[in-house]
Amino acid sequence: MSKLVAPHGGKGLVICKLEGAARDAELKKAAGLKKIEISSQVKGDLIMLGIGGFSPLNGFMTKADWKGVCADFLLADGTFWPVPVMLDASKAEADAIKVGDEIALERKGEVFATMKITEKFAMTEDEKKWECEKVYKGHGEESKDEVFFEKAMKDHPGVQMVMARKDFCLAGPVKVLSEGEFPTKFKGVYLTPAETRAVFDQRGWANVAALQLRNPMHRSHEILAKIAIDVCDGVLIHSLIGNLKPGDIPADVRIECIDALIKGYFVPENILNAGYPLDMRYAGPREALLHATFRQNYGVNRMIIGRDHAGVGDFYTLFEAQTIFDTIPTPAAPGKALLCQPLKIDWTFYCFKCDGMASLRHCPHGKEDRVVLSGTKLRHALSNNQEVVDHFGREEVLVILRKYYASLTEKVEVKLQSHAEGSKM
Amino acid sequence: MSKLVAPHGGKGLVICKLEGAARDAELKKAAGLKKIEISSQVKGDLIMLGIGGFSPLNGFMTKADWKGVCADFLLADGTFWPVPVMLDASKAEADAIKVGDEIALERKGEVFATMKITEKFAMTEDEKKWECEKVYKGHGEESKDEVFFEKAMKDHPGVQMVMARKDFCLAGPVKVLSEGEFPTKFKGVYLTPAETRAVFDQRGWANVAALQLRNPMHRSHEILAKIAIDVCDGVLIHSLIGNLKPGDIPADVRIECIDALIKGYFVPENILNAGYPLDMRYAGPREALLHATFRQNYGVNRMIIGRDHAGVGDFYTLFEAQTIFDTIPTPAAPGKALLCQPLKIDWTFYCFKCDGMASLRHCPHGKEDRVVLSGTKLRHALSNNQEVVDHFGREEVLVILRKYYASLTEKVEVKLQSHAEGSKM
Repeated sequence: MSKLVAPHGGKGLVICKLEGAARDAELKKAAGLKKIEISSQVKGDLIMLGIGGFSPLNGFMTKADWKGVCADFLLADGTFWPVPVMLDASKAEADAIKVGDEIALERKGEVFATMKITEKFAMTEDEKKWECEKVYKGHGEESKDEVFFEKAMKDHPGVQMVMARKDFCLAGPVKVLSEGEFPTKFKGVYLTPAETRAVFDQRGWANVAALQLRNPMHRSHEILAKIAIDVCDGVLIHSLIGNLKPGDIPADVRIECIDALIKGYFVPENILNAGYPLDMRYAGPREALLHATFRQNYGVNRMIIGRDHAGVGDFYTLFEAQTIFDTIPTPAAPGKALLCQPLKIDWTFYCFKCDGMASLRHCPHGKEDRVVLSGTKLRHALSNNQEVVDHFGREEVLVILRKYYASLTEKVEVKLQSHAEGSKM
Repeated sequence: MSKLVAPHGGKGLVICKLEGAARDAELKKAAGLKKIEISSQVKGDLIMLGIGGFSPLNGFMTKADWKGVCADFLLADGTFWPVPVMLDASKAEADAIKVGDEIALERKGEVFATMKITEKFAMTEDEKKWECEKVYKGHGEESKDEVFFEKAMKDHPGVQMVMARKDFCLAGPVKVLSEGEFPTKFKGVYLTPAETRAVFDQRGWANVAALQLRNPMHRSHEILAKIAIDVCDGVLIHSLIGNLKPGDIPADVRIECIDALIKGYFVPENILNAGYPLDMRYAGPREALLHATFRQNYGVNRMIIGRDHAGVGDFYTLFEAQTIFDTIPTPAAPGKALLCQPLKIDWTFYCFKCDGMASLRHCPHGKEDRVVLSGTKLRHALSNNQEVVDHFGREEVLVILRKYYASLTEKVEVKLQSHAEGSKM
């Protein structure tokens, strides 16, 4: 019997994808249905619904769910849920659809799902703004009342995505027909909740931690995973393999870095390197809760929450993604509360006086003793093939990143060259 | 309100010591009572009873308690308890006492307690042997059926103490009148459960780990405390300040080492250096359970259990003090189960390839990359003022230990010298 935490919501894994003949038939039917063009974010959400990553959700949220989630972290039925999962539609699309209809959800010509419409509702600018205030606003400098919305429209990709949603929403259960590029592009890394659970069960794990990653794994991340391995049965390194903001390092490069790190510096039986198909929302504390919620479905009961988890810019204070776990509602009804607990760890770094990795909770030394490197300086060093300061990253990882940045430079040079050649003509 | 774990047994802290006028009156009364000479181990147990460290016990065990603890880890009333806490008496002492009597418990002329006798029972050699088999026998080489008892009588101080007990036992509640040398000799370090709880409460802690120490704190211990600090609110460094086996480093030297280490390598707000007055029993897995049980009374809910916890010689396998926590009874009645959970951590060491402290659970490298030093080699290096291999201990700690070993050598030299001088006369 599995010793893992039960999926969130008390209904087991709610898997909305169809396979084999059922999928073939549904695809055929979809060809004759009215179509909605979905965003990249919706595509990621759909695939999570498909593989049971968003259990107990079986489709997109109703207005009551949306309101409860934004205001109180609760679905209309009283189940904990931290972030809206919405399907938006334009006025034209919505006008052509009535409750009870089945529709097809497409992106760039590919059918991702069919959906039975149970509710159709308008979402005004003010309502979207309210959602942003509730879900995306934190306690950092850029979240101050007088500047939040203006700053967010400029610098917060999550808020921009909410505000870019079309003016209507459609709710209802989905039948997912495609997992997009993930199963082929990330073969062996893109694992469903059922698959990660099978690995954990096979290894006899009961207490599993997850490390959320959207960056290559440097030593400050490595130590988080190692602390988790020391106090749990094992750790899931779980990278976002959907979309990030421009300039971030692509998922395949990040996954290669993590593989190299595991090969050189971990006992493989105690770690699993996997990815999940969502786009980043950058919702900081709320997204930390989402990370814990869907990790529970993957079989994880301890979600590592470090410094500025899922943050962007200066919208959140450094540790509000940790403290929010102490304030969320814990519904008493069976299955309705979040069971995946945070594993809160302070800022980590190499310290010369400590002679190893340390955290702010135990290192008493000063800034001058610590190896701290800004992302900007790191990118500069890697792009220019310069040495990265000792003890910051593992050489095996830095080699991969140098190669990646060199390829970017080559692309730019090729572009500039062809541009130059073009202008000669 | 305190966020700490409740004391063991569901009765709050059961504090058996008297103070002020009540103590003065009891001391006066004690002068006229029959006396029992107690062992060093009994003295430690008595003081723990006095300060609430052994809650819910309020005195020495009855035969039913003894039998239940040895056989099933349960007191006669169904409360979890892992190790017998017995008061022994000689035939002559027992013959002079009857149930209902009050007696005085003395050691080396000092009255430590009075006790009301509720039960008097013989304890045969065979019964003591049975206790040793149940409580002290493990799964190491020296615990094999055919050799256990013979080896134990030679090499196991805990078994030797059981077998050296006098032939009768006395049960009943105690009134403790002295804490011996501890309050003065270990001022500021010898803290009662009420005192550690007050410190933790004042710091707002809810999740507190304890690190058991009977050695100076080297880096392999330091990292255990640091892992605990990373995942809990703080850590109690809790040294045994009662008696150890001959050749071990005295408590005052160990405490000085720990103070130096904390000063140089910890954030003081997240750690507390304290001691408890018991003698070591070296009961390995059973003693690990005892450590968790009385730590719960000190306000601790996570007991760090590392490699060969509380072991001696080769009586226990390296991690059976961890696995025993998975097999103990968990009484359903409120308060009767052990609430302090183990924080199991694997063997820790410095690894050159990892470039820092590591544990067997994540370091994939070989023996040749790791700094592992036997106690014998360490003592040799310290005694001979030689360098200790890099990364094993902190220089601030090694300096104190070198001084201690040098003082031992001086003592031996002084002895030899006076002997030589004496023989000349």
